[in-house]
Amino acid sequence: MDHEAFDYEQVDAQGRLRHLLKLRGLDASVILDLLTRAQGYIRPIGHAPARDDCLAGRTVANLFFEASTRTRASFELAAKRMSADVLNLDVNMSSRIKGESILDTIYTLQAMQADIFVVRDASAGIPELIATKVEPHISVLNAGESDISHPTQGLLDLLTIRQHKSTFDGLAVTIIGDIAHSRVARSLTEGLRIVGDSEVRLVAPSGLEPDPDDYPGAIITDDIDEAIAGSDVLVTLRIQRERIKEKSSLMTSHEYLKRYGLTEARLARARPDAIVMHPGPMNRDVEIASSVADGPQSVITQQVSNGLAVRMAILAAVSAGFDRA
Amino acid sequence: MDHEAFDYEQVDAQGRLRHLLKLRGLDASVILDLLTRAQGYIRPIGHAPARDDCLAGRTVANLFFEASTRTRASFELAAKRMSADVLNLDVNMSSRIKGESILDTIYTLQAMQADIFVVRDASAGIPELIATKVEPHISVLNAGESDISHPTQGLLDLLTIRQHKSTFDGLAVTIIGDIAHSRVARSLTEGLRIVGDSEVRLVAPSGLEPDPDDYPGAIITDDIDEAIAGSDVLVTLRIQRERIKEKSSLMTSHEYLKRYGLTEARLARARPDAIVMHPGPMNRDVEIASSVADGPQSVITQQVSNGLAVRMAILAAVSAGFDRA
Amino acid sequence: MDHEAFDYEQVDAQGRLRHLLKLRGLDASVILDLLTRAQGYIRPIGHAPARDDCLAGRTVANLFFEASTRTRASFELAAKRMSADVLNLDVNMSSRIKGESILDTIYTLQAMQADIFVVRDASAGIPELIATKVEPHISVLNAGESDISHPTQGLLDLLTIRQHKSTFDGLAVTIIGDIAHSRVARSLTEGLRIVGDSEVRLVAPSGLEPDPDDYPGAIITDDIDEAIAGSDVLVTLRIQRERIKEKSSLMTSHEYLKRYGLTEARLARARPDAIVMHPGPMNRDVEIASSVADGPQSVITQQVSNGLAVRMAILAAVSAGFDRA
Repeated sequence: MDHEAFDYEQVDAQGRLRHLLKLRGLDASVILDLLTRAQGYIRPIGHAPARDDCLAGRTVANLFFEASTRTRASFELAAKRMSADVLNLDVNMSSRIKGESILDTIYTLQAMQADIFVVRDASAGIPELIATKVEPHISVLNAGESDISHPTQGLLDLLTIRQHKSTFDGLAVTIIGDIAHSRVARSLTEGLRIVGDSEVRLVAPSGLEPDPDDYPGAIITDDIDEAIAGSDVLVTLRIQRERIKEKSSLMTSHEYLKRYGLTEARLARARPDAIVMHPGPMNRDVEIASSVADGPQSVITQQVSNGLAVRMAILAAVSAGFDRA
Repeated sequence: MDHEAFDYEQVDAQGRLRHLLKLRGLDASVILDLLTRAQGYIRPIGHAPARDDCLAGRTVANLFFEASTRTRASFELAAKRMSADVLNLDVNMSSRIKGESILDTIYTLQAMQADIFVVRDASAGIPELIATKVEPHISVLNAGESDISHPTQGLLDLLTIRQHKSTFDGLAVTIIGDIAHSRVARSLTEGLRIVGDSEVRLVAPSGLEPDPDDYPGAIITDDIDEAIAGSDVLVTLRIQRERIKEKSSLMTSHEYLKRYGLTEARLARARPDAIVMHPGPMNRDVEIASSVADGPQSVITQQVSNGLAVRMAILAAVSAGFDRA
Repeated sequence: MDHEAFDYEQVDAQGRLRHLLKLRGLDASVILDLLTRAQGYIRPIGHAPARDDCLAGRTVANLFFEASTRTRASFELAAKRMSADVLNLDVNMSSRIKGESILDTIYTLQAMQADIFVVRDASAGIPELIATKVEPHISVLNAGESDISHPTQGLLDLLTIRQHKSTFDGLAVTIIGDIAHSRVARSLTEGLRIVGDSEVRLVAPSGLEPDPDDYPGAIITDDIDEAIAGSDVLVTLRIQRERIKEKSSLMTSHEYLKRYGLTEARLARARPDAIVMHPGPMNRDVEIASSVADGPQSVITQQVSNGLAVRMAILAAVSAGFDRA
């Protein structure tokens, strides 16, 4: 039972997706192929959802070390609609022995013949750590990692943009909010850089700006009105209410909306066909006006549908590699 | 993504059950049809349970904002035996933003193509709120709402009565306990009024009497012995132990049994073929003597079997309306 | 609804396994048959897991009154791979009314046509209590009971030993750790006594020794080095960290490893082909050196695979008795 450290390339020697830990490093063709697959799983509202039996007899283990409702529900339904057996494990672990205990949990589930690990964790590095340790036929999917990476969110955002813009070139994509702590902003920006040549504008309140080195080529500003002007895509980020207070003990939710929220007046400065996105769950009338969230330019629920389709596409893609065993 | 308010009639234009929020307002034919369908799902103990694939490929989301073991298990098994994919969400929400957050959760699950929402909530109005907002093909089933409504409990109680009494006319149905806070008493009484002409007697300790306007035609009393005399059906309600103390700091569980509990001596005052019901979970030897709960007139476990059959019948009924999409 | 007390023989009149509450009292043929069945469910790592549809349409209820990750996951996957519907209930109950409430929960689930109850409880006697009360077609499987019994662990340990030793006679099996509180030690020792004639050596720190009457014929010692000498099988037990402190306020994890842990140096005293087992989850470098846990003689992850196979074998065995209804 010597657990050697394996290679954890995201794509295997045959060019097939194995792990999905981050978008950075993937070829455009891999990403575009996932988006095309995902599009094939989209069904009109009210129709029966798409199904696929490519995971029949296989086991997907959802390991959520950080609470989540929507991402877990999305992965769980995706796996069930691919005919997998699904095991949900919500695990709380003391931090002192966390890395070691997580690996023993992984070895245990691997010995029970789990094939795919979906992992969410509030700290950085856990998905990579797991990917270095599992057997060659097993896939690790990152379902949200600290403020580092959320690749399935990045992919669903790309799919949503493509559905409305038909190109990834020449767009102005403006992301607004707590950029410093946002894995959503990171993954989307990484993805945009791979699939095309668009301008990324990052609007962050003072104190929540990102490290510019993490966003080469991006415009970083705190002038929301200027950034929105002429934008094709607006992405509003969830603000942790406690961070508002940290940064400015005087800023209320109402003041946040006024200074950094996406209101109808601000939206009017964007291109008339601009789309409005949010990874959810929203703080209505804090980072986004409720009227904008429910307005004609909002594609927020469409993002949710796309999220499920993207996760089905990823599961289908990695299932092709079970013969690596 | 404009979420307009939809109509939330429980029965659609074709006369098919769509939502089940409360029994009040339903036609007798709708209720009796559900009871007949449910009877068809009953199997003898030890036999394999009834199955039906009318929800194959469909998704049932169990949204329990209030803790429940038995009702959730019953809905979960009913959905699984209809071949549905089942998503269990136990959600705790702060009350301040509850309504708004619940709706965003619903929109999210709707975008993941959930077809049926089973909702339990400790506060009033949430199932109706959801029903006004979901797409036309989606059904909302009330799994317990504050002290207002518990329609599947009402239906399983009706089914149990019909199995033993063969008529809903001319019966004396006596409900004993904390009527003021009982959604069970309300739903059963509403149902009885629709399907026949029986006498409802409500026995409540002082301070736990219902508003008479909620129970037109019912006899309200605190004289348990008189009420039980000649009864055909006896329904004992779960007493919240903390309420006993509230109402009378001196009344112990033992005293409650003595004054308001269904004992063998009291049961002897009912008709010899009277049946004894309880929605569970029981406080044995508080509201009901253990010997009565386990005695020959008790139909309490039969109620549980009927509950599962009723929930299967409801799922089958609403699945006929998926073409409303 | 009179719940009479039923007989709870573990094997029915036709000689078929009905309940699995403890290994004591089972015939060697029953145990060896389960091991052979389990071996048939083993698949090479990376292959799709074994499946069987003998529980199609049946319901397995996992009742865990004590927290568990791995044992529950193992039972859940075993049941799903046998095509059962699985109901997970994690129940916290106040101790005062526990026995009574558990039985009402059981009657409820039985009325919902659950066929198999998997029960884990921190106190003694609950699985037997349940077995005396359920209908004749229903099976109760003990998934861990206080410090009394853990029969599926005992069986998976036996299977692991048989895979490496090919005989149960003449082995020296040494179990090290908190024997006094170990259901793992008890069940393995009971099993070994039934299937062969091996020597059991129990190594316990002072204060954690077992009652000799519970282990007739076993060698009880606190001299770990002497006990390990010439051993064929070494079983290290999980130490509850709080117990180390209880017994000796001065003993740290490091000191525990030094005095009672299985280190490489100690392992060298065993036979060269000795195998190292641990029921998991491990405290690495407390009861077992990390290098030993991951070393060539460790069969710890194999135990996990065997656990799933054993549980599938048990489910298959008891499903043959559904016709007792």
